[in-house]
Amino acid sequence: MDFVHDVIVRKRDGGELDEPRLRTFVAGVVSGAVPSYQASALLMAMVLRGLSDDETLWLARAMIDSGKTLDLGVLRRPVLDKHSSGGVGDKVTLVLAPLVAACGAVFGKMSGRGLGHTGGTLDKLESIPGFRVKLPQGDFLRQLERIGVAVVSQSERVVPADRLLYALRDVTGTVESDGLIAASIMAKKVASGTSAVALDLKVGRGAFAADLAHAREIGRLCRLIGDACGRPTTCLFSAMEQPLGRAVGNRLEVEEAWQVLSGEGPADVRELVLELAAELLPSADLGLDAGEARARAEAALDDGRAAEHFERWCFVQGGDWRPGQFHRLAGHETEAPQDGFVTRVDALAVGRAAQVAGAGRQTVDDKVDPAAGVLLHHKLGEAVAAGEPLATVFSRDPARRQEAGALLEAAFTLADRPAPAAPLILGRA
Amino acid sequence: MDFVHDVIVRKRDGGELDEPRLRTFVAGVVSGAVPSYQASALLMAMVLRGLSDDETLWLARAMIDSGKTLDLGVLRRPVLDKHSSGGVGDKVTLVLAPLVAACGAVFGKMSGRGLGHTGGTLDKLESIPGFRVKLPQGDFLRQLERIGVAVVSQSERVVPADRLLYALRDVTGTVESDGLIAASIMAKKVASGTSAVALDLKVGRGAFAADLAHAREIGRLCRLIGDACGRPTTCLFSAMEQPLGRAVGNRLEVEEAWQVLSGEGPADVRELVLELAAELLPSADLGLDAGEARARAEAALDDGRAAEHFERWCFVQGGDWRPGQFHRLAGHETEAPQDGFVTRVDALAVGRAAQVAGAGRQTVDDKVDPAAGVLLHHKLGEAVAAGEPLATVFSRDPARRQEAGALLEAAFTLADRPAPAAPLILGRA
Repeated sequence: MDFVHDVIVRKRDGGELDEPRLRTFVAGVVSGAVPSYQASALLMAMVLRGLSDDETLWLARAMIDSGKTLDLGVLRRPVLDKHSSGGVGDKVTLVLAPLVAACGAVFGKMSGRGLGHTGGTLDKLESIPGFRVKLPQGDFLRQLERIGVAVVSQSERVVPADRLLYALRDVTGTVESDGLIAASIMAKKVASGTSAVALDLKVGRGAFAADLAHAREIGRLCRLIGDACGRPTTCLFSAMEQPLGRAVGNRLEVEEAWQVLSGEGPADVRELVLELAAELLPSADLGLDAGEARARAEAALDDGRAAEHFERWCFVQGGDWRPGQFHRLAGHETEAPQDGFVTRVDALAVGRAAQVAGAGRQTVDDKVDPAAGVLLHHKLGEAVAAGEPLATVFSRDPARRQEAGALLEAAFTLADRPAPAAPLILGRA
Repeated sequence: MDFVHDVIVRKRDGGELDEPRLRTFVAGVVSGAVPSYQASALLMAMVLRGLSDDETLWLARAMIDSGKTLDLGVLRRPVLDKHSSGGVGDKVTLVLAPLVAACGAVFGKMSGRGLGHTGGTLDKLESIPGFRVKLPQGDFLRQLERIGVAVVSQSERVVPADRLLYALRDVTGTVESDGLIAASIMAKKVASGTSAVALDLKVGRGAFAADLAHAREIGRLCRLIGDACGRPTTCLFSAMEQPLGRAVGNRLEVEEAWQVLSGEGPADVRELVLELAAELLPSADLGLDAGEARARAEAALDDGRAAEHFERWCFVQGGDWRPGQFHRLAGHETEAPQDGFVTRVDALAVGRAAQVAGAGRQTVDDKVDPAAGVLLHHKLGEAVAAGEPLATVFSRDPARRQEAGALLEAAFTLADRPAPAAPLILGRA
């Protein structure tokens, strides 16, 4: 009998897969010995039957060992990283990375390219002219040593199993497995040599987890893998009903990140960055507790050191950073149809509008337009008068501006009374 | 969003697929528009979430319409067929086909090539020198008209969706879905132009259904499809704990079928054939009820007419039928280790032994050895003395004889007392 067939049947019938079976499966996906149609059948059985904690951990370990693993030990300092489950307007890495360096610790990230509505961190950085995200490993290490911050694109040789499995999951309805999600997130972190990770797991309509309980379960599995691999992992659960901040779109988000780095900018972005700094910095070699970490991060945002580290970072990675200096596209304003309070700004709809405007990809080969995107003039709870602009969409293409404008119109709900304020931070673990 | 992705997600989440979705899926499998990795993910979701009666019927209809459908109406007579879910030593078609003709009705079958332990009906027929199973459709029709019996290989253009889906299910652990099984069986019968079908659904360790309730459910779905397509379908549920008859292997089974056609042979084969004739013949245009049908079939076995129709059938399809005249292979005997009663003859193990001997295929490209197989000297309930032969395996290869002999040794259990006799026919529907 065929080995993979037996593995599929065992999982289909609700059995547990042991470590050797999971290793053989993952290795076979990478070598091509396991055809994609068997892999997708097993993935569907995993989604519907679930994975035990042991299976999740074994799968993560098999994925880590499917490719190259980096050892950052030569730095003799902990390298911190943060991972977000993805949200509309999430520019946190752009602020947190130089902020961690400004606080005296080391932030190193290897980032993949997503297929999200709006570009990922790499696309945002590349909206800065000249910014290079492809660095040889030696340069990555030297940069971490020299300026304490580096964000680069992930080598294809690191966790190749995840790249192959994710591409398959994306088209076969098999993304939605807590164990597969956790293994995918953590395998990349561990294989990249990260010492400690802060996870920002989003909850809400625009997020991968619809409720806090689900996000907590994925967080628990991520921490289980992190602990087993000796990489302390903490989780923050944050709301993603409306976009984070007011800017959605690559260069627009870098501009907003710069405001936050300069002690200004939207309060929600600043708050989330500070909370993540408080989670992450205690894992550095600075002897800080969470309270001290937050205080140090606040100071660095307010006294210019964070902004200075951002400038240095851009310079070292080749980016020509000039705040506010970029080609502004024509905008289309969505106006409030009536007086009222904003009771809904649908993150998903705003994300789609930004994608339509040209800020995101629909297929891996699409090019993103760095200047395209959406600016929100009003967020949840704010009062607005009839005719005032709610949002502006920027796009090179008039037809796309129209289409995105219609999406934005539908993204807002106004009411006579404001809805009760909802918290941004929903919990931690 | 991708259409197939949405279909997969809908079934994954327990929703029902409507007829247009199932048609688009099946047509896409045949055209190649649906890649195999999406098809297998959907098949696994179907296995784990189940298919409703409507879905099963829609799927069967989409499969029927995926290729050519035959119209046998030119014969102006009902064409009967029988389908077995597959069992070890099942040579019933070899007897039933000419028997139906001998009773004055028409039996026409288009048969696929299976991957069972021992060959399928086509392999059994081909163990007769010269027997041609590939006939042009016109010849098939003319033969039915002339001698009332024809068994040919199924055209690849009939239900191509089943061929593709079955190949995929076979290697992805997705065979075990009642709806998929029923749709696969019945789509082929309906598309082949059969007027009425008797199903022989096997129950037991050596069968596709482990218990009667499960077999009844598959039977119910098959009848649902048959009724909806205007092809009256009846079900017999028969036990498959031990092999049927005493011969397992292609030519060995033809010899045993000949004994039954001549009014002799093992009682279980004769009984099953007569029960199926009683199910099937009332659907002919002869005005027989089940009791009359059985009596007429018994008479045809006992007065030589059935054997005569078998000879005529072989002759017309090119086969040089000479009873007992074939190259006998060297045999290896398995002896009883002690005195006792046979309380177990594991059908699965005997099937594997015959396969090892060369009677079956492991891959579609394997050649079967027509003379290889197993003869059982004792069956359930029979008394045996220490040293008496229990079974003989025939193979060209001494090493395979040894290996098959060991399997046969383990297939038998002897005890001091006989186990209570178990019925062959478990029910009907």
